[in-house]
Amino acid sequence: MSVTAAKGFTAAGIAAGIKENGNPDLALVVNTGPRRAAAGVFTSNRVKAAPVLWSEQVLKSGQVAAVVLNSGGANACTGSKGFQDTHATAEKAAEALGRGAIEIAVCSTGLIGVLLPMDKLLPGVETAAAQLSEHGGEKAAIAIKTTDTVHKTSVVTKDGWTVGGMAKGAGMLAPGLATMLVVLTTDADLDNDALDKALRAATKVTFDRVDSDGCMSTNDTVLLLASGAAEVTPQYEEFAEAVRQVCDDLGQQLIRDAEGASKDIKVEVVNAATEDDAVEVGRSIARNNLLKCAIHGEDPNWGRVLSAIGTTSAAFEPDRLNVAINGVWVCKNGGVGEDREKVDMRYREVHIVADLAAGSETATIWTNDLTADYVHENSAYSS
Amino acid sequence: MSVTAAKGFTAAGIAAGIKENGNPDLALVVNTGPRRAAAGVFTSNRVKAAPVLWSEQVLKSGQVAAVVLNSGGANACTGSKGFQDTHATAEKAAEALGRGAIEIAVCSTGLIGVLLPMDKLLPGVETAAAQLSEHGGEKAAIAIKTTDTVHKTSVVTKDGWTVGGMAKGAGMLAPGLATMLVVLTTDADLDNDALDKALRAATKVTFDRVDSDGCMSTNDTVLLLASGAAEVTPQYEEFAEAVRQVCDDLGQQLIRDAEGASKDIKVEVVNAATEDDAVEVGRSIARNNLLKCAIHGEDPNWGRVLSAIGTTSAAFEPDRLNVAINGVWVCKNGGVGEDREKVDMRYREVHIVADLAAGSETATIWTNDLTADYVHENSAYSS
Repeated sequence: MSVTAAKGFTAAGIAAGIKENGNPDLALVVNTGPRRAAAGVFTSNRVKAAPVLWSEQVLKSGQVAAVVLNSGGANACTGSKGFQDTHATAEKAAEALGRGAIEIAVCSTGLIGVLLPMDKLLPGVETAAAQLSEHGGEKAAIAIKTTDTVHKTSVVTKDGWTVGGMAKGAGMLAPGLATMLVVLTTDADLDNDALDKALRAATKVTFDRVDSDGCMSTNDTVLLLASGAAEVTPQYEEFAEAVRQVCDDLGQQLIRDAEGASKDIKVEVVNAATEDDAVEVGRSIARNNLLKCAIHGEDPNWGRVLSAIGTTSAAFEPDRLNVAINGVWVCKNGGVGEDREKVDMRYREVHIVADLAAGSETATIWTNDLTADYVHENSAYSS
Repeated sequence: MSVTAAKGFTAAGIAAGIKENGNPDLALVVNTGPRRAAAGVFTSNRVKAAPVLWSEQVLKSGQVAAVVLNSGGANACTGSKGFQDTHATAEKAAEALGRGAIEIAVCSTGLIGVLLPMDKLLPGVETAAAQLSEHGGEKAAIAIKTTDTVHKTSVVTKDGWTVGGMAKGAGMLAPGLATMLVVLTTDADLDNDALDKALRAATKVTFDRVDSDGCMSTNDTVLLLASGAAEVTPQYEEFAEAVRQVCDDLGQQLIRDAEGASKDIKVEVVNAATEDDAVEVGRSIARNNLLKCAIHGEDPNWGRVLSAIGTTSAAFEPDRLNVAINGVWVCKNGGVGEDREKVDMRYREVHIVADLAAGSETATIWTNDLTADYVHENSAYSS
C-alpha cells in the first residue's frame, strides 16, 4: 500500500550499500501519469541540504515525475559537491525513467556533513528503477528508515480515489516541519494549486504540531504527487480532509516512534485568544525539558507547565490559568487544584490540557518525554 | 566571606524544618547600614512566584534592609495564600530586626505549587535573626541550596571596598535570568541608580548567558545591596567591573554544578553582524538537545551546530559558516572542514566557536551537555 495505494504510481525500495550495515537505503517513487501534478513543503531551516535546494527547484518547474529518496546520509552541509551529487542522482533517475532531470525530486536523510557514496547510490538508482512495481510502496517505506524502529504508511480511500503516503522520522522532530521525509500520492485529478493549498493546510495542523525535541532538520520534505489516474476530481474540501487525515496518521506514527520515548504527550491548549497563541503556548510546554523529564518519571508536575506558559507572549492572566493532566485539574486559577495523587500516569499516552481562559481558540501539539534512552541514542548516533 | 565579606552586613543560615530531610533551608542577610541602597533583577517569566511579586514592590520602596531566603519550596503558583505567606515572612523579619516589612525582600526556591510550612518558617526567621553574624555569609549560602551539590560564593576586593555574593542554582538555568537566587553585597557608598545600572549591565553578560536547559523559572532573583560602610564611592566603571566579575564567577559556578552535567560547553559566536545576532545564535546552539547529547557522547557533531544556527534570524550565509570544536575547524564555508577525528573531547570543558562571517560582534553563552543523569534527577525531583 503506502505510496502505491493510489493508481498511477510505482515504487521500489532496495539496499544500494549506502548504509554500511546492508539495510535498505534507497527508494524510488514514480508517477506514471497521466498527470504529474505536485506540491511540496520544505524545512524552514536556513541551512538547507542539497536535495532540499534541488527539490525546491523541481517543484517550481511545475511537475514531478519521480522522487528518489535515500537514507544513510543527509547530504547536508556538503557544499557544491553535495549539490552536484544530488543533481547526478536526478540525472540518473531521469535517464532510467526516460524523463527530464528537472522532473525528479530528491530527498536524503541521515548524518549531516558527509558526502554520499555516489559509486553505490547511482547504480542503486538503476537497480531500483528495474524493480519498480505497483506493489512496491511498502519496500519504499522501509528503505527510508534511519533510526525508525518501524516503517510508516497510511492510506485513505474515498469514492473512486485514494490518498496514500509514507514517512520516515524518529528524532529531530520539530516544527517547520517535524523533521522527516514524507511522500504522499493521490490518483485524484487535481492541479498544482489545489495540491499546494491542501498540503499546506494539512501540514500546518499535523506535522507542524509534532515536536519531539525542538530540533529542526536541514532536510525536511513533504511531497504530494497527483497522477490523475482515477479520473476523478473530488471536491476540494473532501480532498483536503483526506490529505489531512493521512498527514495526521503519519504524524502520530512519527511521535509514537520517537527516539527513546516512553510517553506520548498530547498538549492541548484551550480557550486561547488566538490560534497562534495556542500554538505558541503548546510548543513552549512541549519543549520544556524539565516537564518532559517529569512526565518520564510519571510525575504530574504542573508547576513546570505554568513555568513554560509564563515564557510565552500569549494573552493570559497567571491567576486564571488551569491545567489538567490526564483529566485531573491539578492547577486551578494559577494555583493548587485537585489532588495530584489522583493523576494516573501509568499509560503511554499523557494528556495535558492548558486552559488560558483568554478566548475560544485551541491547538494541539504532540511531543514525547525526555528519557535516558533519548540521550543514549543521540549520543551514539554518528559513531 | 560571601555576602558578609563587605562591611555593614550580617547573615545567618539555619535549618528551620522546611526541608523534610533537616538540611539548612533558611537564610537571612541584613544590611546594617549606614546606607541601605539596593537594586534587583527578577525573572522575566510572566508566572512569577509570590516572593518575586513582593520583592519587586520592596525594591520600589527605595531601600532594602534585609533579605529572607528559603529553600524547600518556591511559593510559586500558590495564589493569594502564597502572597500572604511571603508578606507574613517579611513582617516577621521586620519585627525581629526593628525595621519596616516593606524593607524586607523575600526569595524562595524549591518545588512550585506547594504552600510553605509557615509554622516552621516563621519561628525559623526568629532563630536566624538571633544568629546573625559578620561571619554568617557561608552559612547563608549553604541554606539556599536545593539540588546544588556545592554552595556558591564569590568576593572581589578593591581599594577599600568589596563586592561579595552568594548564589544557588543547579538546574532550570536559562536566560532572563539563569534561574537562581543571588544576593550580592557591597560596602561601597553608591545610590540606587548606580547599583541598578551596574547590576543590569552585569547580569546581561553573565547570568543571562548561562543557559543550562532552556527552562526559565518563576523565582529568579538577583539582588545587590549597598551598605556604604566602607565610606568609599568608587568610580562607576570600576564598581561595575567588580560586580560583573562576581556575577561571572557565580555564573560559572552555576554551570559547573548544573544537574547531571558531565561537560561544560562554551558557545562562542564570533563575527556576527550584531551582538543580538550573536546571542540569538549562541542560545539556539546551547539549547539544541541533539547537539547536547552528541557532546555528552564526545562526538564533535558540527552538523547539529549548523542545524541550530539555521533556525535563527541572524544575518549569515549558509555557505560562509565556520565551526570549530576544541580548536579544530571541523566546518569550513558551510561544509566539511578539518578532520573531525582530530577533535579531543576527553575533558570537561568543550569550546564551540561559531563564525557567522557577517560582521565583528561576539557573544558567549555557556551551557551543559544533556545526560541520562539530568533526566534521572529531573524525573525524581518532586518525589
